[in-house]
Amino acid sequence: MTAVHDAEQILLAHLGNFGETTVPLADALGHILAEPLIADRDFPPFNRVAMDGFAVSFDAVQAGQTRFEVAYTQFAGAPESTLPNPSLAVEVMTGAVLPKGATAVVRIEDVAIQTNGSKKIIDIKAMPEAEWQHIHLQGYDRKQGGCIVKQGVRLTPAEIAVAASIGKSTLRVYHRPKIAVVSTGNELVPIDQTPLSHQIRQSNAYTLQAFLAEMNIASDRFHMLDDRNEMESLLARLLNDYDVILTTGSVSAGSVDMLPSVLAHLSVRQLIHKIEQRPGKPMWFGRKGLKFVFALPGNPVSIVVCFLKYVRSWLLRSMGVEPEMQLYASLESDIIFKPKLTYFLPVKLSSKRNGSLEAQPLKGHGSGDFANLVLCDGFLELPPEKSIFYSDEPYPVLLYRALR
Amino acid sequence: MTAVHDAEQILLAHLGNFGETTVPLADALGHILAEPLIADRDFPPFNRVAMDGFAVSFDAVQAGQTRFEVAYTQFAGAPESTLPNPSLAVEVMTGAVLPKGATAVVRIEDVAIQTNGSKKIIDIKAMPEAEWQHIHLQGYDRKQGGCIVKQGVRLTPAEIAVAASIGKSTLRVYHRPKIAVVSTGNELVPIDQTPLSHQIRQSNAYTLQAFLAEMNIASDRFHMLDDRNEMESLLARLLNDYDVILTTGSVSAGSVDMLPSVLAHLSVRQLIHKIEQRPGKPMWFGRKGLKFVFALPGNPVSIVVCFLKYVRSWLLRSMGVEPEMQLYASLESDIIFKPKLTYFLPVKLSSKRNGSLEAQPLKGHGSGDFANLVLCDGFLELPPEKSIFYSDEPYPVLLYRALR
Repeated sequence: MTAVHDAEQILLAHLGNFGETTVPLADALGHILAEPLIADRDFPPFNRVAMDGFAVSFDAVQAGQTRFEVAYTQFAGAPESTLPNPSLAVEVMTGAVLPKGATAVVRIEDVAIQTNGSKKIIDIKAMPEAEWQHIHLQGYDRKQGGCIVKQGVRLTPAEIAVAASIGKSTLRVYHRPKIAVVSTGNELVPIDQTPLSHQIRQSNAYTLQAFLAEMNIASDRFHMLDDRNEMESLLARLLNDYDVILTTGSVSAGSVDMLPSVLAHLSVRQLIHKIEQRPGKPMWFGRKGLKFVFALPGNPVSIVVCFLKYVRSWLLRSMGVEPEMQLYASLESDIIFKPKLTYFLPVKLSSKRNGSLEAQPLKGHGSGDFANLVLCDGFLELPPEKSIFYSDEPYPVLLYRALR
Repeated sequence: MTAVHDAEQILLAHLGNFGETTVPLADALGHILAEPLIADRDFPPFNRVAMDGFAVSFDAVQAGQTRFEVAYTQFAGAPESTLPNPSLAVEVMTGAVLPKGATAVVRIEDVAIQTNGSKKIIDIKAMPEAEWQHIHLQGYDRKQGGCIVKQGVRLTPAEIAVAASIGKSTLRVYHRPKIAVVSTGNELVPIDQTPLSHQIRQSNAYTLQAFLAEMNIASDRFHMLDDRNEMESLLARLLNDYDVILTTGSVSAGSVDMLPSVLAHLSVRQLIHKIEQRPGKPMWFGRKGLKFVFALPGNPVSIVVCFLKYVRSWLLRSMGVEPEMQLYASLESDIIFKPKLTYFLPVKLSSKRNGSLEAQPLKGHGSGDFANLVLCDGFLELPPEKSIFYSDEPYPVLLYRALR
């Protein structure tokens, strides 16, 4: 039996490496960046007008001038111009290049405008408070050559915007592993069949495929009966064709739970078998060279916990992602759990108006109860050293549903 | 000018309706369910063995019997059997049907096993504490006909697992709208071109497309110059071909900001123009029959705030999704903001070990500063009635990045 923390360390010591690839920017969302994003020019690339209004010389305003004749209009997208002399103003649009010689922008709301034939005169009602008011100065956000986004970041709309701005129409990203999801169990029938009274449908493989799809990882689905020969021949083939194999079931204490011995026979080296936790205790992990096998238990809730706690973070770390922020939440009621095991307590989360995250324990029906998982936002990780967990105590959360 | 809350009410009064469609289960992740998921049988469908071990009569154990001869083995996937008489035990595997007549399961760890030829005898070391121990009773999770997942729920792995279990190989979901994303501005060049010194690349449309892709909504991208005829002809065509149009720029106070008048000319009825907020004040919203236009400002940060606050929630509500949980976070330092506007303060979030979510204000460089958005987790919504916001006060969070 391996402690939860030790299991995490073993996984970190055996990360995968699936290489790199190049994707078009339009398909890059969710991928993990394998190159830094570098500013190809200053950002902003010029002194950028930040408000519709009038560009003036701040010195002239400071000297007491409040009335300006407007020399011309500077539109966004027009090349840089020059203020003909400091007693004149230039009408400017948001996004325009600030005319040379102008050192402040007065908003259109802050002037009175008179037109007299083709002449336009402004009277400033609210004087600029400082030089460079309403001007986004060249290079203020980033200097040319500066790193804007580091390698190893998962691409969200924020990074996509940066990539577009620096002209990256393709991006170097980490390759996703080829994954096979394999369910086991004679009691399982395909989902489009009507099960006999002693059978159930194969939902576990769909759960895992959906988890992987959330990470933008495609996978293939297989099923094998509780039969040593069938297991050996299918797994031998999959070890050849895939980077990672995720199985469900056949790793527990029963006499038909033959997967660990089948994997041993196929020279997959066992690194973890049984973790001091509930649910998910029977979990098995091993490798054969650069191929990795996670053999998860067969219970739906165990699969969710093991995937989120171990498989997901292993995949992210293997693709170069830094660990995500650990969320903490406070228990809403006392919980007693006596076994010396880490207990992953299913909870419903709520964010209180005082800024605290609270976790309401869900009345669990054991690790077979997938239907209750539809109410579950995540699992509170309760450490094995204690057996009474009091209301208001905070514990780490393993998020089942992404919060938005 | 419309208050933030009033703008939300106007949007709710003008939701879209994009119809329904059917998708295969394997493609259903992220879609929104347009039918409830109903239990097609009891869950579990039979008295299900929850631990590898031995099924016995609890009455026999209570009467003092501790030694049992094992009659046979009941495997998962085998039809229901019957305990030949209450003084015998049946070896059972997790997931098996509990034999008729058995009323408790003793774990394999809790017995001593002797084999004598073909005879197997167990001595129970830890007596079952209650009837039905380690048995997941038929219908305990859900009765046949019961609703497991309601219509209007976004499909995560949890709901995919349920759908698989009840044999739904296809699902009825809400149709996604056809969306056009249109940038405006003469200063913008395509991302694969090298901009001149007064030009910048078209990043805003990529940001919006990435936001939509996160919601599994595909979109098409267009650009139009600051030219009334070009705008009118493109928008007339898009109003015909798309359900929703998102534009960026040309809605502010400048003389080239002609989009509102172009939309009026195309008979798009204005419902919102200018919201009492920063950034994002110039936002415009209108409809023409069943077609909807969100005209967002041109600044990168304004676009992010307006999309998250208005467009995203409008799309979700239009597709039948219930409002998401509102997150709150506490300010980490004092903030002064004097204008009588709702202020969306960019923040970095951290979850403290006491279970509270804290928001560290990011030094903003104004609404043009997209590069700082890579550090931003979300925006704290600071109400217009106050101008000093003290450290430790909690406020609602608009999440930019999904938390996991």
